[in-house]
Amino acid sequence: MGTEKITPMEPKYPSASKTVMTDLVLPSDTNPINNLFGGELLARMDRAACIAAERHSEQVVVTASVNHVHFRKPVPLGSLLTLEAKVSRAFGTSMEVFIDVWKEEHEKRAKEKVNEAIYTFVAVSKDGIPVAVPPIVPETALEQERYDGALRRRQLSLILAGKLKPEDATELKALFS
Amino acid sequence: MGTEKITPMEPKYPSASKTVMTDLVLPSDTNPINNLFGGELLARMDRAACIAAERHSEQVVVTASVNHVHFRKPVPLGSLLTLEAKVSRAFGTSMEVFIDVWKEEHEKRAKEKVNEAIYTFVAVSKDGIPVAVPPIVPETALEQERYDGALRRRQLSLILAGKLKPEDATELKALFS
Amino acid sequence: MGTEKITPMEPKYPSASKTVMTDLVLPSDTNPINNLFGGELLARMDRAACIAAERHSEQVVVTASVNHVHFRKPVPLGSLLTLEAKVSRAFGTSMEVFIDVWKEEHEKRAKEKVNEAIYTFVAVSKDGIPVAVPPIVPETALEQERYDGALRRRQLSLILAGKLKPEDATELKALFS
Amino acid sequence: MGTEKITPMEPKYPSASKTVMTDLVLPSDTNPINNLFGGELLARMDRAACIAAERHSEQVVVTASVNHVHFRKPVPLGSLLTLEAKVSRAFGTSMEVFIDVWKEEHEKRAKEKVNEAIYTFVAVSKDGIPVAVPPIVPETALEQERYDGALRRRQLSLILAGKLKPEDATELKALFS
Amino acid sequence: MGTEKITPMEPKYPSASKTVMTDLVLPSDTNPINNLFGGELLARMDRAACIAAERHSEQVVVTASVNHVHFRKPVPLGSLLTLEAKVSRAFGTSMEVFIDVWKEEHEKRAKEKVNEAIYTFVAVSKDGIPVAVPPIVPETALEQERYDGALRRRQLSLILAGKLKPEDATELKALFS
Amino acid sequence: MGTEKITPMEPKYPSASKTVMTDLVLPSDTNPINNLFGGELLARMDRAACIAAERHSEQVVVTASVNHVHFRKPVPLGSLLTLEAKVSRAFGTSMEVFIDVWKEEHEKRAKEKVNEAIYTFVAVSKDGIPVAVPPIVPETALEQERYDGALRRRQLSLILAGKLKPEDATELKALFS
Repeated sequence: MGTEKITPMEPKYPSASKTVMTDLVLPSDTNPINNLFGGELLARMDRAACIAAERHSEQVVVTASVNHVHFRKPVPLGSLLTLEAKVSRAFGTSMEVFIDVWKEEHEKRAKEKVNEAIYTFVAVSKDGIPVAVPPIVPETALEQERYDGALRRRQLSLILAGKLKPEDATELKALFS
Repeated sequence: MGTEKITPMEPKYPSASKTVMTDLVLPSDTNPINNLFGGELLARMDRAACIAAERHSEQVVVTASVNHVHFRKPVPLGSLLTLEAKVSRAFGTSMEVFIDVWKEEHEKRAKEKVNEAIYTFVAVSKDGIPVAVPPIVPETALEQERYDGALRRRQLSLILAGKLKPEDATELKALFS
Repeated sequence: MGTEKITPMEPKYPSASKTVMTDLVLPSDTNPINNLFGGELLARMDRAACIAAERHSEQVVVTASVNHVHFRKPVPLGSLLTLEAKVSRAFGTSMEVFIDVWKEEHEKRAKEKVNEAIYTFVAVSKDGIPVAVPPIVPETALEQERYDGALRRRQLSLILAGKLKPEDATELKALFS
Repeated sequence: MGTEKITPMEPKYPSASKTVMTDLVLPSDTNPINNLFGGELLARMDRAACIAAERHSEQVVVTASVNHVHFRKPVPLGSLLTLEAKVSRAFGTSMEVFIDVWKEEHEKRAKEKVNEAIYTFVAVSKDGIPVAVPPIVPETALEQERYDGALRRRQLSLILAGKLKPEDATELKALFS
Repeated sequence: MGTEKITPMEPKYPSASKTVMTDLVLPSDTNPINNLFGGELLARMDRAACIAAERHSEQVVVTASVNHVHFRKPVPLGSLLTLEAKVSRAFGTSMEVFIDVWKEEHEKRAKEKVNEAIYTFVAVSKDGIPVAVPPIVPETALEQERYDGALRRRQLSLILAGKLKPEDATELKALFS
Repeated sequence: MGTEKITPMEPKYPSASKTVMTDLVLPSDTNPINNLFGGELLARMDRAACIAAERHSEQVVVTASVNHVHFRKPVPLGSLLTLEAKVSRAFGTSMEVFIDVWKEEHEKRAKEKVNEAIYTFVAVSKDGIPVAVPPIVPETALEQERYDGALRRRQLSLILAGKLKPEDATELKALFS
C-alpha cells in the first residue's frame, strides 16, 4: 500500500465537480420578516459543496471548516435560489470549495448574486480516516484566481488554528507589508 | 429622532443574552457515515446565535456573516448536542456572537467540546433598516478576551470585504510585525 | 386588455427555462429497504418543474397534471440525485415540462439515468386566474421530438378527462391505425 | 419452491387494503399563493397508496409508476385533506392503486373531491426481487369499473414503455375504432 | 347576540367527527433503538384530535390539555400506524377527544392496539376568543362509557388545576369511598 | 448478576439532569391562527425530557407516559421558547421528569411562563429491557415539593391503569378525606 501512495493521482478540472442546486424559498425556510434564514442558506451551501467535494474525490467527505461568509442581500420568500459549487484547490486529503449563490425574485426575474462562500472538506474512508484526493488544475481565469487565493486562506486558517506562526505565512504576510 | 440617537443606550452584559440549546442528533441530521452533517450544525448555530442577538438587541436580527468555523470532532447519531451562544461585542447596529458546542456521546456521557464559532448579526426594523443596539460590557476573563478579539476580527472582515486597507488595520497588523 | 391579448408574446427557447437541482438522498428520504421513496422523487420533480415553468412564464405557476412516470431503478441512500427540467411546449396558459433524473451512486460514481417524467403547469395571476405564457421554439433534436410529442400527450390527456372525443384526436389516432 | 408457486394465492377484496389518511394543510405544505403544493400532494398520495399495497401484499412495496394525475381544485392553507387508497387490481407482482382525495375548507366544511390518481406498486423481497401478490376480487360497482379499466391502463402503459405494440392492445384499440 | 346564545346548538354524534390518520413510521420518526419517538406520536395524536375537534365544532380549535397518555408497546421503524380520533364529550366551549392508536408491523401484519389518549380542545374565533360548540349524543356502548368518564376526568383536571375543591368532585369522590 | 443488583446505585441531584432547550417558533410550527401547535410543543417537551432522563440514567430511555399537560397561553409565531427539564424522582427503572416552559414574545421580551408538564421515561438496554436508574436526592424546596408529589402521581397513574386499588393509594386517598 505504501508504494501505491507514491503514485500521484490524476489531476482534475474544477468543472468536473461543478454542482448546481436550484430550489424554491419556502415558508419553512424564512425568518419573521419573510426572508431566507441565514442558517438555511448555510445548510444548503454545505450540501452543494459536499456534493462537489464528493464528485472530485469519489469518496465520502466531511465538512472541515467554513471561511468568511457574508450575507449581502435578503432573499425573500418565494424566490428561486441557485447555488453553484466547484472545488477550487486540493491539499492532500482536503478540498477547498467555492459556492456562488444567486436569487431570482418573483417580480424581477433577473438573476442577482447574493452570496459567495468557501467551505473546506476532508475525504474520509468509511472508518473516518482521511484519504488522499486528486489535485486540481484550474482552467478559467476565475478558477486560477481562486486557486491562488486558496493558499493564502489556508495559511490564515492555520494561523487562526494555532498551527502556523504568522511570520511563516509568507503568502499572507505579503498582504500587510 | 435625531436627538434621541445621541442618548447612549444602556450597556448590557454578555450573560443577558446567554442562550442554551440542547437537542438530540437524529437520523435526519446525519451523513452517510452516521455523523452530524456540517450543514445541520451550521443551521443550529445560526438559530442559537440569532436568539442571543435578539435577546441583546430586543429587535429582529438578520445574519450578516459567519467567521471561521472549524469542525474538530465527529458527532455520532444519538449524541446530545449542547450549544451556548452569547453576544461578545456590539458595533453600532451589529453584534458579534460566540457559539460554543459540546457533545455527550451515548456510551461515554462526558461533555466534550466539538466546536466554536463566531457569527455576526445586524438588528433591523420591520422594514429591514439597521437599528442601533446596546454596547457590551464584558464581565469574565473569557468574555474580555473575546471582546478584545472582536476588533481584530472586524478589521480582518473589513479588509476581506475590501472596505479597509490592510495598512490601516492597526490591531491586526500588530499580529504580523 | 382585449387588444393586448392579440399581441403575440415573444417566443422563448427551452434552454431559457433549464433548471438543474442536484441534492443528496438522506435517511429521511428513504423507504424500509433504504432506497429513495417514490413520493419524495415526485415532490422533487414537482419543485424542479415548477421552477422551469416559473422561469418560462415569469408568473406564479400551479401543477395541473402529471403524466406517466416510471420508476425504473432504485436510488440508494447516500446517492447524488440530479434533476434537469425544461419547458417542452406551451399551450395558451399551460406548459408541459420534461424532467430527466440521474443518480450517482457512492461506489460507482458514473451518472445513470433513473427517471423521466412529464408535468403540466398553468401560469396564474395572484388571484389564481390563468394567464397567457410565451410559446416555445425548440432548438435541439430532442427538444423538437418532445415538442412534437406534446400534442399527442395533450390529446390523450383531454380524452381521458372527457374533454375530447377519441375520433377527433387525429395525432393520437394515427398511432393505432 | 417451484411447486409452491403453482399454488394460487387466496384472492382479496379491495376493502382489505383500504387506507384513510386525513391530515392538515400546514404552512410548510403551501406555495406562494397559499395553496397546497402539487408535489406535497403527490408525496402524500404515494404514502397512502404504498400503505394500501403493503396491506394487500403483506410485503415491502416500491412505487413503479404514476398514471395521469389531474389537480382540479386548489387546496387552501388550513384545509383538512383526506386521502383514501384501495388496490384496484393485481397483475402478478404488481398492484394498481386508486387514490381519491377530498378537502374540507375552513369556512365551508363540506367535503369536496379535489383529486383522483392511480399509482402502480411492485411487491419486493428484502433483496428487491419482485414477489407474487394475491389477485383482487372487486365487490362494489365502482371497484368493478376500476378493475376493468386497469387492463386498458396497463396496455397503454406498456405501449408507452415500448413493451407492447399498439395493434396488440385489443382493449385499448376498441376505444379508437 | 345575547339571545342567539340562548338557542341551544344542534347536538352531534361522535361519529360525525371521526378522523382516521394512517401513515408510515419513517427513519426521521424514530429513536436510537429504531422505535417511534414518543414525541412524534404525541404530535400525530394532537393533529388527529385537532381535526376531530374542528369537524365537530366547525371552528378553529386550540389544544387545551392532554390527559394521561401511556405508551404501552414500541412501534418499530417501517410499521404502519393508524390513529382514530372522535369527540367524546363537549363542555360549553371545550371538547374532549379520544384517540385510539394501532400499529401493523411488517412481518406480522395483524393490527395491534398500542395507545389510547385523551386530549382536550377549545374552539376559538379568529381573535382567539372561546366560542360555544354543539353537545355530544353518544350512540355506541363505548361512546357512552367515554361520555360518562369525561365528567370524572373534568373534575380531576379542575382539582389538579386548583379550580375545584376535592370535596366538591362528587363523581370522582365516589371512586375513593 | 443478582448480587450486583443489590448494590445500591449512587443517588444523583435533579440539577445533574437539568436540560435547557431554547429555540424559535417558526412558520412550520404554527396553527392557522399563527400560534405554536400543541403537538409541536408536546414533541419538544418529549425531546427535552428525554435528554434529562438520559443524563440521569446514562442509558437509552423511552417515553412511558405523559401526565396532565395544560396549555395556558398561546405562543405566537416568532417567539423564543425555552424549555427546562429536570428529573424529579426515580422509581426503580422509571423516572418522572418536570418540564417548565417560558416564552419571550417579540415586542415584549419579558419571559412568561406558558406551560408545565410531567413526562415519565423508562431506561432500557439496547434490547429494550428495563434497567435500574439511580435514585434522586432533591436539593431545593421546589425539587422537594415535586419529589413528594411524584408518589401521589404514581399512585393515581397506577389506579387509572388498573394496577392499584383506589383504597390502597394511601397518599392519594388523603386528598379526598
